[in-house]
Amino acid sequence: MSASPQVSRSASPVGHAAALPPFDLVIFGGTGDLAMRKLLPALFHRYLDGQIVEGSRIVAIARDARSDDEYRVRVREALAKVVAEEPRGIEVLDGFLALLSYRRLDLGDDAGWPDFAAELTVEDRVRVFYLAVGPDLFAVVADRLHAHGLIGQHTRVVVEKPLGHDGRSANAINDALGRVFDETQIYRIDHYLGKETVQNLTALRFGNALFEPLWKAEHIDHVQITAAETVGVEGRAAYYDRSGALRDMVQNHLLQLLCLVAMEPPASLSADDIRDAKLKVLRALRPITADNAAQLTVRGQYRAGAAEGRAVPGYAEELGSSSETETFVALKAEVRNWRWAGVPFYLRTGKRLPERSSEIVVTFRQVPHSIFDDGEGSVRLAPNKLVLRLQPDEGVTLWLMNKVPGPGGLRLRHVPMDLSFAEAFGGRQADAYERLLGDVVRGNQMLFMRRDEVEAAWQWIDPIRAAWQAAHEAPKPYTAGTWGPSAAVALIERDGRTWHEEGG
Amino acid sequence: MSASPQVSRSASPVGHAAALPPFDLVIFGGTGDLAMRKLLPALFHRYLDGQIVEGSRIVAIARDARSDDEYRVRVREALAKVVAEEPRGIEVLDGFLALLSYRRLDLGDDAGWPDFAAELTVEDRVRVFYLAVGPDLFAVVADRLHAHGLIGQHTRVVVEKPLGHDGRSANAINDALGRVFDETQIYRIDHYLGKETVQNLTALRFGNALFEPLWKAEHIDHVQITAAETVGVEGRAAYYDRSGALRDMVQNHLLQLLCLVAMEPPASLSADDIRDAKLKVLRALRPITADNAAQLTVRGQYRAGAAEGRAVPGYAEELGSSSETETFVALKAEVRNWRWAGVPFYLRTGKRLPERSSEIVVTFRQVPHSIFDDGEGSVRLAPNKLVLRLQPDEGVTLWLMNKVPGPGGLRLRHVPMDLSFAEAFGGRQADAYERLLGDVVRGNQMLFMRRDEVEAAWQWIDPIRAAWQAAHEAPKPYTAGTWGPSAAVALIERDGRTWHEEGG
Repeated sequence: MSASPQVSRSASPVGHAAALPPFDLVIFGGTGDLAMRKLLPALFHRYLDGQIVEGSRIVAIARDARSDDEYRVRVREALAKVVAEEPRGIEVLDGFLALLSYRRLDLGDDAGWPDFAAELTVEDRVRVFYLAVGPDLFAVVADRLHAHGLIGQHTRVVVEKPLGHDGRSANAINDALGRVFDETQIYRIDHYLGKETVQNLTALRFGNALFEPLWKAEHIDHVQITAAETVGVEGRAAYYDRSGALRDMVQNHLLQLLCLVAMEPPASLSADDIRDAKLKVLRALRPITADNAAQLTVRGQYRAGAAEGRAVPGYAEELGSSSETETFVALKAEVRNWRWAGVPFYLRTGKRLPERSSEIVVTFRQVPHSIFDDGEGSVRLAPNKLVLRLQPDEGVTLWLMNKVPGPGGLRLRHVPMDLSFAEAFGGRQADAYERLLGDVVRGNQMLFMRRDEVEAAWQWIDPIRAAWQAAHEAPKPYTAGTWGPSAAVALIERDGRTWHEEGG
Repeated sequence: MSASPQVSRSASPVGHAAALPPFDLVIFGGTGDLAMRKLLPALFHRYLDGQIVEGSRIVAIARDARSDDEYRVRVREALAKVVAEEPRGIEVLDGFLALLSYRRLDLGDDAGWPDFAAELTVEDRVRVFYLAVGPDLFAVVADRLHAHGLIGQHTRVVVEKPLGHDGRSANAINDALGRVFDETQIYRIDHYLGKETVQNLTALRFGNALFEPLWKAEHIDHVQITAAETVGVEGRAAYYDRSGALRDMVQNHLLQLLCLVAMEPPASLSADDIRDAKLKVLRALRPITADNAAQLTVRGQYRAGAAEGRAVPGYAEELGSSSETETFVALKAEVRNWRWAGVPFYLRTGKRLPERSSEIVVTFRQVPHSIFDDGEGSVRLAPNKLVLRLQPDEGVTLWLMNKVPGPGGLRLRHVPMDLSFAEAFGGRQADAYERLLGDVVRGNQMLFMRRDEVEAAWQWIDPIRAAWQAAHEAPKPYTAGTWGPSAAVALIERDGRTWHEEGG
């Protein structure tokens, strides 16, 4: 009765880690932070696993003059850490680098574009344009690609947040992309959706008879979704000050997670079945407006304090001026449908919190009646909890009441069970970008946001911001290294509940 | 996210492995096999754990002349294996032996009984008479105890199976005990109920919100209960031939396990709440009679074959004559109530089977619809299973469908999860008798069968035997070392199901 995984004899594996078809991937912003820290390491890992076949091409685009070899040297440096950790890394690195080339292009004029277009023209080949540039450049790149005939049947475009700063600006971006790309060609990445744990949530909910019948208000007390960071804004203060935690984290990541928890069972794993189901959740969210924002939301901004063992400045000091931008938000959402009516979804995210952790906690209701008695009356039992941890250590844990072994009466304990088996399966944990880039090449949009989802999310977020602006209240201060303003604790405690802490 | 157990902060432990009150335990049959192999080792373990306090007395009764010291030498030998495995065993053995004394008593006359009675008379002390003798002697001992004034307010009597060989003989035994003992003083031991796993079933079902809502026909496909032995009857053939597998195993052990799986939630863990709930299950069992016994039952008797790597004789050879007694039985039971209508409970037990194992397997229904697709259509998912293993390695395992980690699509596997945490909690597994003897001293009848349960069990068993007798069919032969006659496989396979095998 070991916990080691075994292949089921009755169910064949679903899907395969098969090789990708040959593809061309063009990264606009090919020398930037995202490319160097995330995209190229992810591609290299997929290459190491044999998923990227010879003949595939990765073209980095940027404004500076640079030879292919100069670019490869840079990538070699960027991959040094990965190579050091992979025994076979050094042997195959040259093969990977040979797939890379560099091209100087200015988005502002047509110079170089005809050559670029000629080079790319391979019939029937999957061609991916990754726009690792600011959203203000999305329209420019899209128009240029269109003008030079680079958008064909097998072309896809990948864009990252921020997709606008409100509903109107998001629409403008989506309109610009939509002028030259079909919606089926647009891949809006939310890397939270590429996490192993998020996939496992879907596998557990819909692969087992055990969870889905309980997945509703009758059996679930509440849901918590937390995305906590220990970092401050540091060098990004100027950018961050125009965004804030609500738009930077809640509008996309936290709402997407909420949708996956709350969605009705889709008829299939097809992209549109999943996205239709998520969209319905977004549209069922109880609006937060000036009438109830004070009860349902808490904004915070960190002051000087301590993080990871050292003194750190406050947000205003990092920014260089006072600001009304929130670096923390907690809110109580509700999905108004038959399945979830009355079940609070508590969301919180912030910078300079005590630990870096992202997790979903589904807390089941208490058993209706405890038959267990400690001699001084009925014993209160800890409720079952399903904890889906996205970072730092991805995993799924189910907390159960269990008998303490031994002959000394029926004593119970709250015990965590690891449902993710990452250790048992062995191997490294793949980064979300590895899965997501593979899905783009395969043409699987399941983990990418459809335009109407983005719009629905903004339709819920915009009134919250409007309510805050109308209230003229500054964000509540909290000391760096704490769990946000005390009002965030009060938000959940006044419902008789408590934010989840590791350990049950 | 380790699997190590942690004490819940919100639920205090239920019950305590606290010391027992001082008691006198009198074992009739104090030199017999049960006393030496089970009772005294169990008592010694409880002594090692500090549960048996000084002043407690253990008196062995038998017919032979023997001094206390001679008896202690014999017990010392019987405990040699336990002592060798326990680091502190040798140091404390003398303290334990000092609690023991021996008394020669003949059940046939009153000689010695007045002295014995005088010795035992300690006011307000728990006094347990353990009748480790044949059931034909229960009435004799009971009458003698009564005649010598040994039955007081704090007196209890423990009896073992066989409690009769049919309903009528069971009633006779219960009548004889009932003449001198109140039902609250009678402890009918079924050691299967003292198993850790059986306790854990109760903890899991009623301590968690996760299982009970699914614990019914809507979500459970079927239940299997197996008690398999590798041994034959060997020296016990003459006794066994008057019993057979149905009466030796099904009437008590297997039906009791069925009751614990199927019972409605009791209002408390009090003995009568539990036993009321079990009784209702017994009374709801669909009768098996001459009309349906051929469809619902399979009898078998082993022939020569192989067991544990050596050639072994058949049952008839061991007995020395041909016999119609079954050494194997498989049957399909049904609990006719709202919770369980239509859910088969497949029971099987036998001697000379391929492995020694006792387990309960609760198989949940398939998910109603698989959203998982392997490119060649919807993938069939293995159903969830809860496997409660009573021996040899006690434990609880939940089989779930889980995502195979990695970026290669959403592949699922059937994975076993250990819910019993015996390893995590550490320590040795206590024998069932340790728990049960402690419960007798504490006066907790929860794990002991009440008279009406025994009667109800016989009321279901007797018609099965009558049907077999009326059919004049010999048990079907099976080769020693196999899983019984092929008809036992057909019994479940014709329902489209399969006997559970380890590995999912």
